[in-house]
Amino acid sequence: MALTKWNGILYGGDYCPEQWDEETLHEDIRIMKEYGINAVTLNVHSWCVYQPEEGAYSFGVMDHIIHLLEENGINIVMATGTAALPNWLLKKYPDIMAQSIRGVRNRPARRVNYCPNNKEFKHRIQEICEVLAKHYKDQKNIVLWHLSNELEGHCYCDCCANEYRKWLKERYGSLEALNKAWNTMFWGHVYTDWEQINPPAYDNMVMENVNGAGIDLSAFPTESMEYKRFMTESFKKDFEIEKAAILKYIPDALVTNNFQFREYDYDELAKPLDIVSFDLYPEKNDSPHKAAFFLDMCRGLKKKQSPFLMMEMSPNQASWAMSCPVKRPNEVSSIAVSSLARGAESAMFFQIRRSRAGFEKFHGAMIEHSGRTDTRQGKELKKLGSNLKKMGDSFLGTEVPAEVAIIADWNYKWGIEVTSFPKKGTKYFDEVLYYYKWFHDQNIMTDVVRADSDLSKYKMVVAPMMYMLTEKQADNIKAYVKNGGCFITTYFSGITDYQDNVWLGGYPGLLKDMLGIWVEETDTLYENESNLIQICADGFSQKEYTCGVFCDLLRVEGATVFGKYGKDFYQGQPCITENRYGKGKAIYIATKPDEAFLGALFSKYVQETGVIKVLKTSAGVQAALRKNETEQYLFLINYSAEQQKVELGGKLRNILSNEEESIAMLIPGDYAIYRL
Amino acid sequence: MALTKWNGILYGGDYCPEQWDEETLHEDIRIMKEYGINAVTLNVHSWCVYQPEEGAYSFGVMDHIIHLLEENGINIVMATGTAALPNWLLKKYPDIMAQSIRGVRNRPARRVNYCPNNKEFKHRIQEICEVLAKHYKDQKNIVLWHLSNELEGHCYCDCCANEYRKWLKERYGSLEALNKAWNTMFWGHVYTDWEQINPPAYDNMVMENVNGAGIDLSAFPTESMEYKRFMTESFKKDFEIEKAAILKYIPDALVTNNFQFREYDYDELAKPLDIVSFDLYPEKNDSPHKAAFFLDMCRGLKKKQSPFLMMEMSPNQASWAMSCPVKRPNEVSSIAVSSLARGAESAMFFQIRRSRAGFEKFHGAMIEHSGRTDTRQGKELKKLGSNLKKMGDSFLGTEVPAEVAIIADWNYKWGIEVTSFPKKGTKYFDEVLYYYKWFHDQNIMTDVVRADSDLSKYKMVVAPMMYMLTEKQADNIKAYVKNGGCFITTYFSGITDYQDNVWLGGYPGLLKDMLGIWVEETDTLYENESNLIQICADGFSQKEYTCGVFCDLLRVEGATVFGKYGKDFYQGQPCITENRYGKGKAIYIATKPDEAFLGALFSKYVQETGVIKVLKTSAGVQAALRKNETEQYLFLINYSAEQQKVELGGKLRNILSNEEESIAMLIPGDYAIYRL
Amino acid sequence: MALTKWNGILYGGDYCPEQWDEETLHEDIRIMKEYGINAVTLNVHSWCVYQPEEGAYSFGVMDHIIHLLEENGINIVMATGTAALPNWLLKKYPDIMAQSIRGVRNRPARRVNYCPNNKEFKHRIQEICEVLAKHYKDQKNIVLWHLSNELEGHCYCDCCANEYRKWLKERYGSLEALNKAWNTMFWGHVYTDWEQINPPAYDNMVMENVNGAGIDLSAFPTESMEYKRFMTESFKKDFEIEKAAILKYIPDALVTNNFQFREYDYDELAKPLDIVSFDLYPEKNDSPHKAAFFLDMCRGLKKKQSPFLMMEMSPNQASWAMSCPVKRPNEVSSIAVSSLARGAESAMFFQIRRSRAGFEKFHGAMIEHSGRTDTRQGKELKKLGSNLKKMGDSFLGTEVPAEVAIIADWNYKWGIEVTSFPKKGTKYFDEVLYYYKWFHDQNIMTDVVRADSDLSKYKMVVAPMMYMLTEKQADNIKAYVKNGGCFITTYFSGITDYQDNVWLGGYPGLLKDMLGIWVEETDTLYENESNLIQICADGFSQKEYTCGVFCDLLRVEGATVFGKYGKDFYQGQPCITENRYGKGKAIYIATKPDEAFLGALFSKYVQETGVIKVLKTSAGVQAALRKNETEQYLFLINYSAEQQKVELGGKLRNILSNEEESIAMLIPGDYAIYRL
Repeated sequence: MALTKWNGILYGGDYCPEQWDEETLHEDIRIMKEYGINAVTLNVHSWCVYQPEEGAYSFGVMDHIIHLLEENGINIVMATGTAALPNWLLKKYPDIMAQSIRGVRNRPARRVNYCPNNKEFKHRIQEICEVLAKHYKDQKNIVLWHLSNELEGHCYCDCCANEYRKWLKERYGSLEALNKAWNTMFWGHVYTDWEQINPPAYDNMVMENVNGAGIDLSAFPTESMEYKRFMTESFKKDFEIEKAAILKYIPDALVTNNFQFREYDYDELAKPLDIVSFDLYPEKNDSPHKAAFFLDMCRGLKKKQSPFLMMEMSPNQASWAMSCPVKRPNEVSSIAVSSLARGAESAMFFQIRRSRAGFEKFHGAMIEHSGRTDTRQGKELKKLGSNLKKMGDSFLGTEVPAEVAIIADWNYKWGIEVTSFPKKGTKYFDEVLYYYKWFHDQNIMTDVVRADSDLSKYKMVVAPMMYMLTEKQADNIKAYVKNGGCFITTYFSGITDYQDNVWLGGYPGLLKDMLGIWVEETDTLYENESNLIQICADGFSQKEYTCGVFCDLLRVEGATVFGKYGKDFYQGQPCITENRYGKGKAIYIATKPDEAFLGALFSKYVQETGVIKVLKTSAGVQAALRKNETEQYLFLINYSAEQQKVELGGKLRNILSNEEESIAMLIPGDYAIYRL
Repeated sequence: MALTKWNGILYGGDYCPEQWDEETLHEDIRIMKEYGINAVTLNVHSWCVYQPEEGAYSFGVMDHIIHLLEENGINIVMATGTAALPNWLLKKYPDIMAQSIRGVRNRPARRVNYCPNNKEFKHRIQEICEVLAKHYKDQKNIVLWHLSNELEGHCYCDCCANEYRKWLKERYGSLEALNKAWNTMFWGHVYTDWEQINPPAYDNMVMENVNGAGIDLSAFPTESMEYKRFMTESFKKDFEIEKAAILKYIPDALVTNNFQFREYDYDELAKPLDIVSFDLYPEKNDSPHKAAFFLDMCRGLKKKQSPFLMMEMSPNQASWAMSCPVKRPNEVSSIAVSSLARGAESAMFFQIRRSRAGFEKFHGAMIEHSGRTDTRQGKELKKLGSNLKKMGDSFLGTEVPAEVAIIADWNYKWGIEVTSFPKKGTKYFDEVLYYYKWFHDQNIMTDVVRADSDLSKYKMVVAPMMYMLTEKQADNIKAYVKNGGCFITTYFSGITDYQDNVWLGGYPGLLKDMLGIWVEETDTLYENESNLIQICADGFSQKEYTCGVFCDLLRVEGATVFGKYGKDFYQGQPCITENRYGKGKAIYIATKPDEAFLGALFSKYVQETGVIKVLKTSAGVQAALRKNETEQYLFLINYSAEQQKVELGGKLRNILSNEEESIAMLIPGDYAIYRL
Repeated sequence: MALTKWNGILYGGDYCPEQWDEETLHEDIRIMKEYGINAVTLNVHSWCVYQPEEGAYSFGVMDHIIHLLEENGINIVMATGTAALPNWLLKKYPDIMAQSIRGVRNRPARRVNYCPNNKEFKHRIQEICEVLAKHYKDQKNIVLWHLSNELEGHCYCDCCANEYRKWLKERYGSLEALNKAWNTMFWGHVYTDWEQINPPAYDNMVMENVNGAGIDLSAFPTESMEYKRFMTESFKKDFEIEKAAILKYIPDALVTNNFQFREYDYDELAKPLDIVSFDLYPEKNDSPHKAAFFLDMCRGLKKKQSPFLMMEMSPNQASWAMSCPVKRPNEVSSIAVSSLARGAESAMFFQIRRSRAGFEKFHGAMIEHSGRTDTRQGKELKKLGSNLKKMGDSFLGTEVPAEVAIIADWNYKWGIEVTSFPKKGTKYFDEVLYYYKWFHDQNIMTDVVRADSDLSKYKMVVAPMMYMLTEKQADNIKAYVKNGGCFITTYFSGITDYQDNVWLGGYPGLLKDMLGIWVEETDTLYENESNLIQICADGFSQKEYTCGVFCDLLRVEGATVFGKYGKDFYQGQPCITENRYGKGKAIYIATKPDEAFLGALFSKYVQETGVIKVLKTSAGVQAALRKNETEQYLFLINYSAEQQKVELGGKLRNILSNEEESIAMLIPGDYAIYRL
């Protein structure tokens, strides 16, 4: 277990006492103790506090706060505060501000609004982090350093353009290599000087009008994708600067950043971090599998599967949604516990005390504007604190024993969403979630991994719309199947290489032989159209299933056909195939099937491969497992609107009540944790 | 009565003879007399006519037109023409052009496209107004001066930024005060130099994409609001410049501007004006209560309730709507008369003669492209002119005897629409109209007032979504209730102070004790969701009503509960309360109810407080009253598609037919006016 | 016949071998021969190939390709390649890049992204065209020169502004004339110096928000229209530069450009071209009349009706649509043959080999990524090639014998779509297509012409929404009717002159006497509203038809009334009239009728005037005719989803099977061509 600097589950949240007076600070600490809070994230927006003007540092306020927290036994997640730049800095160095895709240098406002490549900015964050680390190097209750804050946006300024060229030069070596890799001869855009290369930024009314606002239809998807990689790299380098500055004074400091899964490659962003953190804000009617997927993803971002932190949840309504309902009774707790169930080791919220003004004054907080704790949410938070204390460090450091892996990759997202894809508006992660859902609903633990991850430990690997594939990745997958693995993939997989050049000779390029098929064409259906999968194999509960959206026209070369299209001019042509390859099997889904089909197909292979379900529960109860060599922890959460009874299949010890139970009775939103 | 410079009701419209030849001018005057037109607005777009180049004035054309109008006994509303700047001026001083929120200095086009703070612009409008006033100071048929024209838009240029800083400095005195008032410590944006403050202008793709185009989600709602106040102030100052320039030569001149209710605080804009004017353009199927509300608002913009002018209506279809239906028979007349009924003392149209080209060539005009008057609309305008003549100055100067006040304020609009409100897309005025409608439909005269207005004269005060409240305003309302008033307010009232800082200690801050409740949380519902109000008090016609959108979770502290929620986890919790406070009552509506509930609730208090209905009419007939010490005038307008019979409750003299009637028979669109 | 440089139908497509290696080039040629391809378009994106840097030319690659094609008997359509500018050029002369309507100088990307008036650009395209022509002047297999490529977009830079002013000066002579023609006195925008005139470009958030994004609501529609004419002229001049440069070395060269019908006046753009080319990309469920209309339009762009070329079709799915279905069996062939049927003399596709990367990697191509020809589309293309060979030059040079003309004009489009039209969102060409459809469905051949075309050859002329009309055009139409023509027009016809100034005295200005009516007002209906046409004349199959959207309120002055409105306040007023005028008839449709009414009305006049249908077929079979003095060719295409039987009315020789047939049996997508 890597998360070593604290005991028990971190419970608390972002804390901004600089917005308040001394009296409120003391009241806050009183309430923290009432709630059982043991940790706060400080300093996320405080650069302007400890450096109120150029060259001047002022740690009085911060020292006082930290001292008081220490006295009260509260841990600190110490933010570097570099996401919110002080106004004096932006006024002096206006070039620090990011430039929009339309070419506008934005005025200061919001956060993470800087050019990540600006020299002065880099210099300043290094400086401030060194000063901070030096000042607080002996502060024992600082258990973790929190770099920057929720990243967002890209910059398209001249400074970025220059750094982009350097970055490309380093990666490609020569323009010849770049021109070849990018196929710039398409539409006659061969580069003959590095200076000719620009960020993909323009104000193109024609594109907006012809193709509908909001669709990023770059003429050169490779360039758009590379720029997103470059932006990822740019922000990652800033992480590295901050980390090095901290380690200079605190060699054993742990660093994190809170992810939100926007337009970066988070596998890359995770590299300089010791611990991944996640900000989870599900909406009222979100199916629970959605949060579960991203929690599973968090667990896998640091090469090996490992615990992570929940850095932000909302203790009540969010404020950014179109409609912001309050959280239902137990909803907040169930979100927190379901995160713990999938590998989280904290329950942190945004924020401790609700701001009086600004963008988030209507966003829930642990201490609301009323200042009272005898409220609905106050009571729930208090109970949550009490339960977290009971959990102690029981399951901390345990692993999630997944036998199924889902392959997901930000590069596929970009390939599908940025380019001139045959079905505009396709959202890659929505597609992946569609396939993930069945496993979640069956209480089958899954890891979310990359195509070049070690797959050998998994009984099944599912790769929906695995758009891009390198030769190395293809080899990895083929080795997995050859050695007995069960691999399931779909339409629009293995289409291009890392620079979005199509693998020639029939799709899916490098996987044709493994799958025993090749794809001649892919039909896309309109909204009101559908097709049928007619089953021609045993082991399916229905004879016919609905499908649509994408319909590959296949040629079978060795695979066994399980299903054929039931309509259109390709009626009777195969759409579901299985191919024996080495000791394993490779299954191809050529069309987007209904959920019933996915259930039938996945059931079949779950049975064949012996994948284990955590527990059989009624719909609406999520079961999850964490374990180490000696112990197992079963988590149950009732997401339904009715009371649910779950048979545990034996007497298990409830770690909250410390009683042995063979049946769990859960009211809506309720949860239970058992030690096995 | 302040409107002293003319006799009878002004009838006519915007007149642009400079677009036409001499022959047409004579023909126009012939038609004006045929229609009974007695006033025209001249010069709205004529700056380029009387100042065709720098330093050169040329009044020949204008003098000739004015002379001819004078000869024909037609009054003139004299515009300063400063909304449409001459091209030579913009070419010479390109900085006069406004800069867009994205940072683009716009090219000349349209009107009110200038920076209101530009020095050269200010100098020029002063100069031209002095020249105009000096030239026409003895022109007797000029009865009113019309400053600028329909204001629109904001400017975000560097000049505005500088003036904004000065304005803030003056209002806040110190940065400390400003930082505190704006809570700039939120997200770490403390200002340490006035120069760091900018207009809230940026090109933020992320915000557009994440939150949906068109939603102004400023990170700092206080700043966005303050900028709107500053823009209001900027335009108001330009009014003051123009007014002073006119008064220099014509000390008894009256000045006006035609309001359209866009993004300014019209209470402020009204201050330099002697008379408020309104441009009213209802759409075909608009419910009549909508226009009535804004007419009631116009009446109250000059501290005390006072008459105003209709400066523009359309004599037929508008041209700016998505679909532009022609006006139905009598529709134009009924709009004009319903305005008179609520305090207007003119019936002016845009425009006298329809332009041959340009943005408004498809906009209705009193003289259409055919040039004929034997047309459907020609006949109606002629009849309207005849009727206006019969009305004479009978009811001019009378007041509208309202016993109910609706509180409405542009600051609430901004608080709700600009900030990160929990229900995006909420339109403040739509919400207010929802509550106003019942009073309108019951023929109960209402004033629209501000929270710091003198409320003592009203039997009931209704304040829907009274978002912001200063201590002074709260005191005013409490004094009203203490002295026996009946005050009804709703969810999202009294939330913040003038700088949009939440009043702490439970909502609605300063009004908790008066209302006998406090609000712990506010749930917002999705489109397809609703809740129920279950009545637990006497005096309601139904046991249960529908409600939704906003659902406050209340804590009762002294109030009596009239209704409880019927669904969701807060079933059984109170949602309608009444609290005795001093000699009066304060009623709280915690959720958006259906119209039936509002009818029942308002009926109850109308009965209790003895509020009088003008007349009981069938649905679709609007009744309104104007009165002075000695006389009352009853206005009836049939908005329905069927003939309506209205019993007058006694013999009344119809001032158009000059006959005594006890029953009014009104065909669709028809109207009648009685003297009581 | 003008298309003289080749034998038979050109079959092939855009070819970009520079994206590939030598081996692929040879493979391509092998496949071309397999498919029967006889022509390729080279060089569309190759400027960067033959001029890799300033001053350096490099024809080695191109010479090699051309030589190989020549050896294999393949014709070349030689593009000038000037749509895709080399990066070195744009880096050196950044001002070549176009400036957006919001004022942003775009970064290089895509194609046709230049300022068409830039001096350096003009110099460069002249230079490169001269160099190309000189180098290839003796290359015999170059049968046609292809200038630039699909035009798109407008530029709004200062250079364009200057050229715009010059162009206006030349056309208007004096500012007085321009001010009068543009009615600039509207809103006070009189110009007193040419320098004051600007392109209609601005970033106006207010307009976007008030009126809905995407609607181009210029305040001065005349200016917006003139700017579109100027842009047309700018691009046309670039065509002239390229043409002159080619003719300098190849005096008998033929030049073309491939049209797509965007925001230019294509009648003007066609003038410098010897041959019009068309890029046709119908969507899956498009009704076939839509493509047919634009094909008919292509035929008429060069003053007299004349053959044209299909320069681009897609051999399979497009990639730019929201959803990109594959082409159904025979769909590609039927599109190609229906083009031939209406005057095309080529079947060219985009593109020969599908690119590996870039914007169009998912766009269909003749050689797909698989590289195989034993595919569904491969087989169809091979069959198409074989059939095209059988057709040979049989019908080349023949004409399409249309007896009906539809009047359509880009200026009407702009008048209706750019200005503040009473029904926003009206799409001019959709309206015209609505009227065109019946003729298409009845297999009646139609020409698409302008209002000043020679109409004497037509038995009927239909002019839907003929918005603008000059006196000369009005005279032309009146002369046509006087001499016995049958002319049918609708609401919103003859409204304005060429500068969008309304013709006064009642609509439709110059045509009132001919039509025997005048229009007093035009009502526009909301989406959910409709009216009725009640027939009061003989010869209609129904007593009542539905109508809506636009409803003119007419005054009849001599015309005979055929139909009256059935609803609303204008119930009983006329809406369909016929007027005898000279020897002919002029029919007015005052409201948008349903299709049934149009069928009845058009049938009536088709019968009266003796217009001939090509053949009576069941719905879904398109019949078309080409003929010359001696021969006729009947084309039949089955667009339906079922097999269709067509009786030919006698024995005709099928030029593909070379058999005589009296009945055609056509499977879906199938076609047949008969010589009569």
